[in-house]
Amino acid sequence: MGRVYNFSAGPAVLPEAVLQEAANEMLDYRGLGMSVMEMSHRSDAYQKIIDTAEADLRDLMGVPDNYKVLFMQGGASQQFAMVPMNLMKNKVADYIVTGVWAKKACQEAAMYGQANVVASSADKTFSYIPDCSDLPISPNADYVYICENNTIYGTKFKTLPNTKGKDLVADVSSCFLSEPVDMSKYAMLYGGAQKNVGPAGVVIAVIREDLITDDVFPGTPTMLRYKTHADNGSMYNTPPAYGIYICGKVFKWLKDMGGLQVIGERNEEKAAILYQFLDNNPMFRGTVEAKDRSLMNVPFVIGDEAMEKKFIAEATKAGFLNLKGHRSVGGMRASIYNAMPMEGVKALVEFMDRFCKDNR
Amino acid sequence: MGRVYNFSAGPAVLPEAVLQEAANEMLDYRGLGMSVMEMSHRSDAYQKIIDTAEADLRDLMGVPDNYKVLFMQGGASQQFAMVPMNLMKNKVADYIVTGVWAKKACQEAAMYGQANVVASSADKTFSYIPDCSDLPISPNADYVYICENNTIYGTKFKTLPNTKGKDLVADVSSCFLSEPVDMSKYAMLYGGAQKNVGPAGVVIAVIREDLITDDVFPGTPTMLRYKTHADNGSMYNTPPAYGIYICGKVFKWLKDMGGLQVIGERNEEKAAILYQFLDNNPMFRGTVEAKDRSLMNVPFVIGDEAMEKKFIAEATKAGFLNLKGHRSVGGMRASIYNAMPMEGVKALVEFMDRFCKDNR
Repeated sequence: MGRVYNFSAGPAVLPEAVLQEAANEMLDYRGLGMSVMEMSHRSDAYQKIIDTAEADLRDLMGVPDNYKVLFMQGGASQQFAMVPMNLMKNKVADYIVTGVWAKKACQEAAMYGQANVVASSADKTFSYIPDCSDLPISPNADYVYICENNTIYGTKFKTLPNTKGKDLVADVSSCFLSEPVDMSKYAMLYGGAQKNVGPAGVVIAVIREDLITDDVFPGTPTMLRYKTHADNGSMYNTPPAYGIYICGKVFKWLKDMGGLQVIGERNEEKAAILYQFLDNNPMFRGTVEAKDRSLMNVPFVIGDEAMEKKFIAEATKAGFLNLKGHRSVGGMRASIYNAMPMEGVKALVEFMDRFCKDNR
Repeated sequence: MGRVYNFSAGPAVLPEAVLQEAANEMLDYRGLGMSVMEMSHRSDAYQKIIDTAEADLRDLMGVPDNYKVLFMQGGASQQFAMVPMNLMKNKVADYIVTGVWAKKACQEAAMYGQANVVASSADKTFSYIPDCSDLPISPNADYVYICENNTIYGTKFKTLPNTKGKDLVADVSSCFLSEPVDMSKYAMLYGGAQKNVGPAGVVIAVIREDLITDDVFPGTPTMLRYKTHADNGSMYNTPPAYGIYICGKVFKWLKDMGGLQVIGERNEEKAAILYQFLDNNPMFRGTVEAKDRSLMNVPFVIGDEAMEKKFIAEATKAGFLNLKGHRSVGGMRASIYNAMPMEGVKALVEFMDRFCKDNR
């Protein structure tokens, strides 16, 4: 078969143009006679690749000069430890728990200090974002932590929490570069690349410089200190070089398209098509409070397990892949990241409409 | 230009057949309509990729059933912390320091317990491997640690140290899969993939199961516990999926060739050509004690800095790349990993011979 429509929550669909370029350059990167995979990370050619990637990311996001961009490894799960190990100077942090990833981050932080849950949407299976306009923020909190887009449940903070002046730290893995961002509202944000940005194995953090110090939790490994990576331009040791190269291509693809404003509008449009269908057809329905709906991850149900199984099987056969919901919530989920084309969403809605007519 | 001869110390040359396959599969992995980069790590297709990679590696190395194979991130530098955090149960370990990487590993371990230097070759710029037949091994040492092949200096342990019954832990990054291995002599070995095995961003560890416990240094992050990775088949979180896929192709390439016995013989032959030339020509000479010479990294000098600069420049022009020695030792270094073809070494020697005749 040709290329399918891949609705995987991550690793996820990448722009076809990026993959085509990577394939073309696999044996010989721009006349250098070797693959980027084979390139010394200390070579001029690779230095240019990582520098360009960082510059393009800064440009896309409008990252102010007093923030560092770090390319690291270990995924968000490793950040769950690195954030408190590096940032909990007072040993207190406030966590807003809107899903399993924020919960895991909070549990990990509890190894390094006092991690308070100041809000949670666990009472309704994380199907909404709690009101965060007036939370009991700890007076000595080092930071307030959120998972901005919740991949499993399909919720997104449309308004950032009122941190009452405390630093905001956000896991943006599943909404990275999906819309314009105001970095000045964050002390730090980070995301695993494997949803909107590139292949698994790269995690990107943007951190305000004053937070990067030697004052870390005792016993913090050298590789888990932000300062190690910041002081060495993300190359203290060999970086995940090929992954960063692919991320760089995705940044170029976004810039060529017009940047985050343009992709944000496209994402709004794509999501609207799907949500509108869910709101108006008699078989499928969304599971998230309308005000908190993610533009990236759209969970939905039929409410009849046998019918859902049938739907997923027929969709797969028709070339709509990975629509099964996360095992913890069931049902279906369509992840429609940046690289999912509009036609993919339209074709899915048509397929769902037909399925509804045929099976009701 | 076409493909060059790339003597980089890492990331390093990969088999052309592997790169060609990867290029061919970039947009559509075996009819699935997506790249391996886009594939959910929870999919059947990806599970088969990682399972096959592990099975092939076990087969190649003859890994006994009571050892786990773990695919992780963070490179050897992260293992410098993970080894003591996980294995220093008595808080004592003995380190044999044969270069900067062993030294860094030892310094990192000192954060978690008593890290003793029981032997060192620092006195002669790490140009030899110390006699390790009767070292003052600590009676309560949790392990004895070596860096088996020293990339920068070009030395290799031809005989493993006498650990007097203690567990041996080895960083094998630059000699991974370069010759047959007797796993029963190691409690654990690990290596970054980016020299002999695949792209940067994957580190592979083989660990005896009884060493993988919950008894770790207090505050060890979840992601830095071997148990986390062992209990979840290296997929506690999203693994560096594409890198593992490339490693798997390299394992197949080695198996198709006949395995570690065959590649070991080829590596002996390749290295012999280069060392023989160094021993017999009037201009170039090796820097390492003959008995300790690495099969993978061959440092050499002319002894005249201007002439060395000229040599590197002309070699580069002629398609012999990355021959510059590590900045800490100077001179030249040819890394001739598994994927460096015999013709590459022969052509290099011919070039050196011509250079010698033209410039002496």
